[in-house]
Amino acid sequence: MALIVQKFGGTSVGDIERIQNVAQRVAKTREAGHDVVVCVSAMSGETNQLVSLAEQISGGHAPLAREYDVLLSVGEQKTIALLAMAIEQLGHSARSFTGAQMGMRTNSDHTRARIEQVDTLVLKECLSEGTVCVIAGFQGVDPSGRITTLGRGGSDTSAVAVACALDADVCEIYTDVDGVYTADPRVVEDARKLSRISFEEMLELASLGAKVLQIRSVKFAMRYGLRLHVRSSFSSDEGTWVVPEEDVVEQLVVSGVTCNSNEAQIRLQNVPDQPGIAARVFTPLGDAGIVVDMIIQNYASDGSTDMTFTVPRGDYAKALSIAQEAGRELECETVEGDDGIAKVSIVGLGMKDHAGVATRMFKVLARESINIQMISTSEIKISVVIAQKYAELAVRALHAELIDVLDS
Amino acid sequence: MALIVQKFGGTSVGDIERIQNVAQRVAKTREAGHDVVVCVSAMSGETNQLVSLAEQISGGHAPLAREYDVLLSVGEQKTIALLAMAIEQLGHSARSFTGAQMGMRTNSDHTRARIEQVDTLVLKECLSEGTVCVIAGFQGVDPSGRITTLGRGGSDTSAVAVACALDADVCEIYTDVDGVYTADPRVVEDARKLSRISFEEMLELASLGAKVLQIRSVKFAMRYGLRLHVRSSFSSDEGTWVVPEEDVVEQLVVSGVTCNSNEAQIRLQNVPDQPGIAARVFTPLGDAGIVVDMIIQNYASDGSTDMTFTVPRGDYAKALSIAQEAGRELECETVEGDDGIAKVSIVGLGMKDHAGVATRMFKVLARESINIQMISTSEIKISVVIAQKYAELAVRALHAELIDVLDS
Repeated sequence: MALIVQKFGGTSVGDIERIQNVAQRVAKTREAGHDVVVCVSAMSGETNQLVSLAEQISGGHAPLAREYDVLLSVGEQKTIALLAMAIEQLGHSARSFTGAQMGMRTNSDHTRARIEQVDTLVLKECLSEGTVCVIAGFQGVDPSGRITTLGRGGSDTSAVAVACALDADVCEIYTDVDGVYTADPRVVEDARKLSRISFEEMLELASLGAKVLQIRSVKFAMRYGLRLHVRSSFSSDEGTWVVPEEDVVEQLVVSGVTCNSNEAQIRLQNVPDQPGIAARVFTPLGDAGIVVDMIIQNYASDGSTDMTFTVPRGDYAKALSIAQEAGRELECETVEGDDGIAKVSIVGLGMKDHAGVATRMFKVLARESINIQMISTSEIKISVVIAQKYAELAVRALHAELIDVLDS
Repeated sequence: MALIVQKFGGTSVGDIERIQNVAQRVAKTREAGHDVVVCVSAMSGETNQLVSLAEQISGGHAPLAREYDVLLSVGEQKTIALLAMAIEQLGHSARSFTGAQMGMRTNSDHTRARIEQVDTLVLKECLSEGTVCVIAGFQGVDPSGRITTLGRGGSDTSAVAVACALDADVCEIYTDVDGVYTADPRVVEDARKLSRISFEEMLELASLGAKVLQIRSVKFAMRYGLRLHVRSSFSSDEGTWVVPEEDVVEQLVVSGVTCNSNEAQIRLQNVPDQPGIAARVFTPLGDAGIVVDMIIQNYASDGSTDMTFTVPRGDYAKALSIAQEAGRELECETVEGDDGIAKVSIVGLGMKDHAGVATRMFKVLARESINIQMISTSEIKISVVIAQKYAELAVRALHAELIDVLDS
C-alpha cells in the first residue's frame, strides 16, 4: 500500500463530467489499496472570471493584494467541494480542505506567497480513517490567519509540498498532455515522450519554457527526492517519471530541445569597461521588478565593452527605457533592443560527459544559415538566442540531429 | 461615535456597481465617525449557480451536506473580497473575514447550523485599528474546523448575532424594499411604511410570510434588545425601526395585514376522541421533516372529533399520504386535503388592550362573503384560513377597515 498524491489542473476539473472522471480515477486508486491525497486547481475559466471581477471593482488600479487572494481562493474551494461530493457518490469517504484548513502555512507575501510549513496532522488523521483528502492547491494561510495564494504554478507546488511533507511515495501530476516530450510535438513531428527524466533536466526544461511542470514544484521535489509522475488525465497510460539522476536508466546526451519566444533582447554598446557598470545597469531593472534572464558581456578590447541581456517580452518597453537612461549616464554609444528573438536550448544529463555537443549544435545552426546572437551554457544545457523567424526551423533541425542520432 | 452593523442582501451586492454603492454607503458611515461592521450575502444568482453545480455532481442524489456547505460558502467569500477592495478604493481601511476567520462558531448541523458563539476578539481588534470589518454572512465553522452554513435567512442572522456579540448600537438591514409596510404594497395600494414596530409584531409578521426579515434574526435581536433598522439599499431614506415594545410610541391596534399562500390544509374527519391520537398523527409528519403550522381540533360531540392542520405547500403530497396512512390506522372516516388555501393574518401590539378586534375582522370577512375555514390566535395576532381566491380581497378589506380606521 502506497501513499499517492494526485494533482489535477484546471482543465482536468473543467466541468462536472471531468470532475466525475477525476473522482473515478481517485476511486480506482483507493480500490487498489492506496491512500490518496488529491490536490486540485480551480475549474478552468474560473480564475479568469474572478480576476476580471477584481479588475472591474478596482477600476484600473491594482486590486488590493490580500483581498485578491481571498477572492481567487474561492476557485479551488468550489472544486474541492464538488470533487469530495463526487468521490462520496462512488462510495468512498472523502473530505475537502482549504489551504487554511489543511495547514498550508505561508509567509504574508500575498499573490505569490512562499510555503513556510505544511502541517500534516489533520491530513494524517484523515488518511488514517481511510478517507481521501481533497485539498485546494494554490492557496495557504499566513501567520495572522489571512488567506494567501502561491502565484503562478501554485497548485503544482502545493501538491509537491504536501507530498514531501507526508513523505508520499509518488506525486502524480495529471495534465492535458501525456508526459514530457523531447520537443514540442506541435513543432517537431517525431518528438517522443520520455519515460524518465532527471530533476535537473526537468528544472532546465521548465526554466526554458516547457509548461508541463512549474519550476518551483520541481525544485521542491528535487530537494526532497520525491518522484513525480507527469501523466494525462484523459488516459491511463504511463507518462513521464521525474526522478533522481541515478534512477534515469536511459540517459540521453540531449533529452530535450526547447524554445522560448517570450523574451526580448537589449544591447548596450561601447560601455566603459569599469568596475560597477553592471550594477548600475541591473540595479534599476531589479528595482522595477524586471527579471533579467541571460546576460552576456564581451571581453573589452579598447577600454569599452558591449553588454547584452534578455528580459521577459512583457517588460521590454519598460526595460528598454530604464536601460537607455542608464546608458546615457554611462555615456555608452547606443542602447538598442530587439523583441523579435527566440531562445532555443538543448538540455541533457549526458552533456556532462559528452564533449562536442556544443559544436554539433552550432554546426547544425550554421548549416541552416541561422545566426547566433547570444550563447549561454550550464552543465546540462546550451541556450542560443536567434532571430525568432528561425525558431521552429532551429528546433526541428536540432531535434533531428541531436536527439535521434545521439540516442543511446 | 456609534458601532453600526450593516447587512446587505444578495440583490444589494448583485453586481460590481452595486458593490461599489455599498462601499460608498460604508464610507459615508465611517466619515460620520462611526465604527462599521458590514455583513454581506452572496451576489444574487451566485448561490443558485452553486446549488446547480452540487445537484449536477450528485446526479439526483442529495448532495453531501458538509461539502455542500464548503461549496455554498464561496458565494459570500467572493462578496467580502470585492467589497473590501471597493472600500479600500475609497480610501478607507477594510478587511474581509470568512465565517471561520471571524469566529462564527456553530454546531455541526450542516446546511442549517445553529450559532453557538461569536468570538469578537479579531473583530474588536480590527475595529480598534479603524478598519472596517467585512464579514461573510450565512456561514460559520464547527468545532472540528469544518465550514457550516446557517440555512435560510442565515445572513440576517449572522449580522444580528455579530451585532449582539459586539453590543452594537444598531444593526441596519439593507434590502430591496424600504421598510416594513402595513400590508404588501403590491396588493394594497395605500399600504404605508411603519416608522417603528416592536420585536413581537415583527416576529409575527415574519412568521406569517413577510419576507423582509428572517424570523431567527428577529428572535436574536429581541433576546438581546438590539435595535434593527430595515431600510432600502437604494435610497438614504429612513426605513422601519424594529425596537422593544416600550420604544414604539405610536402603537397601532393593528399594524399589519399579511397573507401566506404557501400552505396547504389537511383534514381528518371523525377521528376517535382518545388520548394519544394527535401524537399518532403528528409524530410521523415530524419524522418526515414536515413542519406543521396551524392545528385545529374541535370539541368532540359524539366520541369522535375533526382535526385540521396546515403544512407548507411543498410538503403537501407527502403530508397527505402520511395523514391518510395514519387515518386508516385510526379508522377515521375521511382524510382530505386542500392546497388552494391562504392564511390571512392581522398583527398588532394594540390588540392586547383593544377588545373586539377579532369581531371586527370576522365582520369584514362576512361582509365580503368570505368563508373562514380555520382560526388561530395569539396575544397580538389573529390568523384565518380562507380559500386562496379570496386572499387579496380579504387583505384589502381588512387593511381598509382595521388599519386606517383604528390608527391612533
